[in-house]
Amino acid sequence: MTAVAEFLADDVTTTMRAVGEKARAASRTLALAPAAAKKVALLAAARRLRENEPSILAANTADVAAARASGVADSFIDRLTLTPSRLASVADGIEVVAGLPDPVGETIASWVRPNGLSIERVRTPLGVIGVIYESRPNVTADAGALALKAGNAAILRGGTDSFRSSAAIVAALREGLAEAGLPEDGVQLVPTRDRAAVGEMLAGLDGNIDVIVPRGGKGLVARVQAEARVPVFAHLDGNNHVFVAEGADLDMARDILLNAKMRRTGVCGAAETLLVDRAVAATHLAPLVFALIEAGCEIRGDAETRRLDPRVKPATEDDWRTEFLDAIIAVRVVDGLDGALAHIEAYGSHHTDAIVTADQALAERFLREVDSAIVLHNASTQFADGGEFGFGAEIGIATGRLHARGPVGVEQLTSFNYRVRGKGQTRP
Amino acid sequence: MTAVAEFLADDVTTTMRAVGEKARAASRTLALAPAAAKKVALLAAARRLRENEPSILAANTADVAAARASGVADSFIDRLTLTPSRLASVADGIEVVAGLPDPVGETIASWVRPNGLSIERVRTPLGVIGVIYESRPNVTADAGALALKAGNAAILRGGTDSFRSSAAIVAALREGLAEAGLPEDGVQLVPTRDRAAVGEMLAGLDGNIDVIVPRGGKGLVARVQAEARVPVFAHLDGNNHVFVAEGADLDMARDILLNAKMRRTGVCGAAETLLVDRAVAATHLAPLVFALIEAGCEIRGDAETRRLDPRVKPATEDDWRTEFLDAIIAVRVVDGLDGALAHIEAYGSHHTDAIVTADQALAERFLREVDSAIVLHNASTQFADGGEFGFGAEIGIATGRLHARGPVGVEQLTSFNYRVRGKGQTRP
Repeated sequence: MTAVAEFLADDVTTTMRAVGEKARAASRTLALAPAAAKKVALLAAARRLRENEPSILAANTADVAAARASGVADSFIDRLTLTPSRLASVADGIEVVAGLPDPVGETIASWVRPNGLSIERVRTPLGVIGVIYESRPNVTADAGALALKAGNAAILRGGTDSFRSSAAIVAALREGLAEAGLPEDGVQLVPTRDRAAVGEMLAGLDGNIDVIVPRGGKGLVARVQAEARVPVFAHLDGNNHVFVAEGADLDMARDILLNAKMRRTGVCGAAETLLVDRAVAATHLAPLVFALIEAGCEIRGDAETRRLDPRVKPATEDDWRTEFLDAIIAVRVVDGLDGALAHIEAYGSHHTDAIVTADQALAERFLREVDSAIVLHNASTQFADGGEFGFGAEIGIATGRLHARGPVGVEQLTSFNYRVRGKGQTRP
Repeated sequence: MTAVAEFLADDVTTTMRAVGEKARAASRTLALAPAAAKKVALLAAARRLRENEPSILAANTADVAAARASGVADSFIDRLTLTPSRLASVADGIEVVAGLPDPVGETIASWVRPNGLSIERVRTPLGVIGVIYESRPNVTADAGALALKAGNAAILRGGTDSFRSSAAIVAALREGLAEAGLPEDGVQLVPTRDRAAVGEMLAGLDGNIDVIVPRGGKGLVARVQAEARVPVFAHLDGNNHVFVAEGADLDMARDILLNAKMRRTGVCGAAETLLVDRAVAATHLAPLVFALIEAGCEIRGDAETRRLDPRVKPATEDDWRTEFLDAIIAVRVVDGLDGALAHIEAYGSHHTDAIVTADQALAERFLREVDSAIVLHNASTQFADGGEFGFGAEIGIATGRLHARGPVGVEQLTSFNYRVRGKGQTRP
């Protein structure tokens, strides 16, 4: 390491330690803040976003220009770019979160013990949430608003290419907090582009980060999972399956499949593999495959599927494991529910899987036996979304089994504690 | 590293990888096992423990002899030693767990969306639970039984001095599983004493451990927290406070304090610091301190407390942070609720804290503002125990905020997923 690099690293460590300490301090105030104050802060933040549109879009234009100059892909530029309508929908999103019921202080359960002790389990904030994401300015607002609604402080570290845009959005969130008399440090953007800052966050900032939410591609999530010394809400890839089982209505199967694969191919709830029960392959496989081809989807199939049409490419072992996030699908004929369960267990990512069938018993077995965050019967996998679940908003879909599984919304960003009321009881 | 050490390390890695794979395979069967089968397995395991008493006690005698020869402390020997009555209570404990309601498959919440989708949140097992503990054979049975009840596979790594005893107990648990037609590998004892096995567990066994529960002293827990690459249910120390506030009934305060400190000084729910509001110090401080002294408790006090009696030793800054786990208490006069909150925030371990007062408003503020897993009003901190909460049994008290907080019982060893039932819905 050169002397300069060392200096920078030390500098980042100092900077990030201060960020952590300010976040912890702010989190204590936010944890006890009245629901009304948090709502006021969020509504004010949304208003500021609309009022500050010119400066935010100017900052975004600078980010986009710099990114273009560095020669990134168009899809990257698209995710980075803010427009008046995109900014308006970011503000709308914050207003939706503002309108959600406040989870903090909610009694989750309560009971009275034989000795008369009354025990209450009450929802509390988690504390400080670190969010590490790519150059998508909108995530800055979504993550900050959700964390705040749940009474948490947020430390946001977006992609360096969106630094100016994220800073402008965070400024609006902090203005909202100030308007409500809440600590501005409830939302902080990591003030440096130095990538060492991510390492500092993953190390936990001396215990001042309670959980890290990585939001982005596999590479980002994998690094966070591998290096984090604090809990992570893992958002792995959605290698999701649609299983067309015996007793499936062909039209329903076709509608669900096309929607699951093609409605939006880039979302984590998109289907990536079609499994068809051999029992209905003769009647269902061809119409489903041709419907996909007509819809512009590339098919990578097993031997049975390839026989249908020369446009079907051979599926490799890798294809069963791949989240294409594109108009591509892997297709395989399996032997009944057990064949489908075995394939999903072997290749799936425990995210979202669906069965199409009129056979209730088959469906219930699928729902019970597929070990995924979300399992569906006769519905599209693209319903895997916090909004569709009624959570109002989400920060992603967790595929881990601890604390948060499935859509991570406001409720998943809370913890709880036990409040015990007695009349002088002592333990015998 | 010598060639021999390298050989051993490789050997341990291979051994532990196999343990992980067997646990994962068993966990899939256990996850779908009927409640009745799990109950049969636990009852059979308890019966085997009673039937195998001679061989288990013989194994324990060998452990104890070896430990004595190595010159460990008497307290260590005491925790290691099994007697007929202790073994019977271990079996009783398994029967209690067997009798608990089965959490798996329980519907935690369900709702119907405007589009007709019916969403159910259902409790599922966590998967594979690794338990790392000291030379306490009883933990082997408690942890194995709780994990199994929740449909999980368990990988148990007890202290090496209890290896023979733990192996004999695990044998009974596995016999119980076999009797119920469930996979014996649902409970595995790490088959080597090599400490490298702990490192392998902390690394996650190639994704075949979902959560690690460390059970033991601060050193053990700290190492696990520092090195684990998988989620940990942290059981930190219980530096618990009893705050005698304005409006406290002196007799009630005395009873609660003596029970919280002296009932059992070695449990994590024991009180370690007494805080007295200056407003009642004149009337309450002396009687409380003298009651403790008469009960055989050493007092380490602040200036006000030291004035009461020469037997009161000066409290150091460290004493405020120390979990004595002994007949020692730190005593401090504080300025009202805010003084108590500030002290608890600065020195506490977020485990269990109690307020004694007849003032409801004060009590409610304490319950709301103290950021600990368990907060009590007019009750002893020694109620911090899964059994006292009605959980039937626990594997410890978690002080982390994620997933499990407070007593970790059967329910805390489960996860959940979402099961969505539709009629062909697709997402617009």
